[in-house]
Amino acid sequence: MPLRNREDLSIAYTPGVAGPALAIAKNKKLAYDFTSTKNGVAIISDGSAVLGLGNIGPEAALPIMEGKAVLFKRFAGLDGFPIVLATQDTEEIIAAVKAIAPTFGGINLEDISAPRCFEIEARLKKELSIPVMHDDQHGTAVVVLAGLINALKVVRKRKENVKVVVNGAGAAGTGITKLIALYGFKNIIVCDSKGIVSKSRKDLTENKKRLLKITNKKNLSGTLSDALRGADIFIGVSQGNLLKAEDIKTMANRAIIFALANPTPEIMPDIAKIAGAKVVASGRSDFPNQVNNVLAYPGIFKGVLESRAREISDEMKIAAALALAGVVKKSTADRIIPDPFDKRVVIAVSNAVKKIARR
Amino acid sequence: MPLRNREDLSIAYTPGVAGPALAIAKNKKLAYDFTSTKNGVAIISDGSAVLGLGNIGPEAALPIMEGKAVLFKRFAGLDGFPIVLATQDTEEIIAAVKAIAPTFGGINLEDISAPRCFEIEARLKKELSIPVMHDDQHGTAVVVLAGLINALKVVRKRKENVKVVVNGAGAAGTGITKLIALYGFKNIIVCDSKGIVSKSRKDLTENKKRLLKITNKKNLSGTLSDALRGADIFIGVSQGNLLKAEDIKTMANRAIIFALANPTPEIMPDIAKIAGAKVVASGRSDFPNQVNNVLAYPGIFKGVLESRAREISDEMKIAAALALAGVVKKSTADRIIPDPFDKRVVIAVSNAVKKIARR
Repeated sequence: MPLRNREDLSIAYTPGVAGPALAIAKNKKLAYDFTSTKNGVAIISDGSAVLGLGNIGPEAALPIMEGKAVLFKRFAGLDGFPIVLATQDTEEIIAAVKAIAPTFGGINLEDISAPRCFEIEARLKKELSIPVMHDDQHGTAVVVLAGLINALKVVRKRKENVKVVVNGAGAAGTGITKLIALYGFKNIIVCDSKGIVSKSRKDLTENKKRLLKITNKKNLSGTLSDALRGADIFIGVSQGNLLKAEDIKTMANRAIIFALANPTPEIMPDIAKIAGAKVVASGRSDFPNQVNNVLAYPGIFKGVLESRAREISDEMKIAAALALAGVVKKSTADRIIPDPFDKRVVIAVSNAVKKIARR
Repeated sequence: MPLRNREDLSIAYTPGVAGPALAIAKNKKLAYDFTSTKNGVAIISDGSAVLGLGNIGPEAALPIMEGKAVLFKRFAGLDGFPIVLATQDTEEIIAAVKAIAPTFGGINLEDISAPRCFEIEARLKKELSIPVMHDDQHGTAVVVLAGLINALKVVRKRKENVKVVVNGAGAAGTGITKLIALYGFKNIIVCDSKGIVSKSRKDLTENKKRLLKITNKKNLSGTLSDALRGADIFIGVSQGNLLKAEDIKTMANRAIIFALANPTPEIMPDIAKIAGAKVVASGRSDFPNQVNNVLAYPGIFKGVLESRAREISDEMKIAAALALAGVVKKSTADRIIPDPFDKRVVIAVSNAVKKIARR
């Protein structure tokens, strides 16, 4: 709003501002109509698990939150508020986010390390009445599920029959595993740095124990290589340079590889292809099929804010993944995921979310 | 930054954003150069003491913080981040502000009720290494002091000799009393809703007891009317419609009246003039001499941010007041305070602050 003279000033500030303030004081719901909460998403991090950089702290994480704010604006027209926190204590983070929550229409948690991220997100979802989403878990999961849906079409396999290996049991691995299980993948094995996550292990965190309820039903034990034998799909969200061509060769025919470690993938896409993989996705923009969270979170938040939904549900995430997959009209091995600059993406995702919200 | 293609995207977000992130991880001071902290001020309120509206809560206070952000941008080019808090507990507010502090270059506290505002500001100033200012105390005080400096010229009286009555011992009254005492006003009487604040009273808060160290040296007791008898200056920052023409008539010749209650002043400026006051200021834009905080806080924060000062000192506030007064080249009864749209204001105030910071 331009301020050119005293009259403008008296509208933008005192006494004009008393109008919306009094209206909201009488009816809190009007905050949506009269303030930036309608359009505002906090992008909150403690800088403890920045992709590819690790625990670099709040000051160093701020440029990443700022970049994300630029993307929110560019792709969904939303106003992102970068907020970095001077604490990595779970209770202090929850208290701080709850304290500032009336400022925002939604909360996007970012780059918070596992397992704290699970508790923080779960508590905030429960204790706040605005949408809260840890993007590293769910944004990634939505894009991966969309990519898998199209990849299965390319290799002509069905979600009920394939064996999936997820390497990494942190935020992304957990979010992906939960979402694809919910969508209908039946045979999922999760591996962490110690190998297959199984009941036989004594070193499992609460989060990994919970994952056992939806994975590894045959109670396999062993290494990542053991898990990969005969697998149809590999999804890597841990460290780079982990797989060799030989590992790919032990997998089933027409294998699907999502080598998402960043900036160095678990195996370079061209090597994976030569070793026999049919569809390869990565986190890199210089290969086909880039798994990029920007395909999901702008549309998801746009959808919940425009429909005034109070939370981002699992059903919305699956609807978002299906909508995102649907933007690719004819999937091929090199095109299972839409381009981030495809204008249909944010419309498809936000409309899918709004449809669930209305229901 | 426009994002037109994948290359732009890879600069604004991953992997480009790792550059500044890693640089800051190595040297936290670079956050000033590489993030919005350079230019960003949090405007934080719990909505407990909104001018003229009272304790309306965070949601209803948000439009006021948004309006203030517009003013920060318009007058100083700074990026204000409106933040409202879901708590009115002193310790929870302090914890929340400390948690989000690495996001900002400075903290502007706003519309937090007394006496909590004193503790909150004092603790945050001590525990944070970025400038913190409760504008209701200090922004107001700076503009009032600037106005008094010029008003004294008009009535040809000296700060050392005049008797000042401050009505209101909340945030504004306390900030004004402290600053004008520091500047050299010797004879100050503070009144609250129970009358003159004096040693004889048993109901004084800690804050009011502290004010006694710099006020009421003769230990007067009585009502506001008692205090006003013979006074040269009245500064009202409490409730409206408090003074009658007869009260003004008991004051010294060429009295100065700052009737700052908003939107209804303690006495209407034209009535005060007819009753004999020589200089009258108010909070209203439809009378001369509007005391408006926007004359002070944009320049003060611009000054400390540009000089990377770690706090806003008393010396800076006095320098800011003198600079602001100096913008009015020839003071008259109807012109003791500059126009907010006078471009020299923010330059004068920020330069004065920077000069102290450099020293």
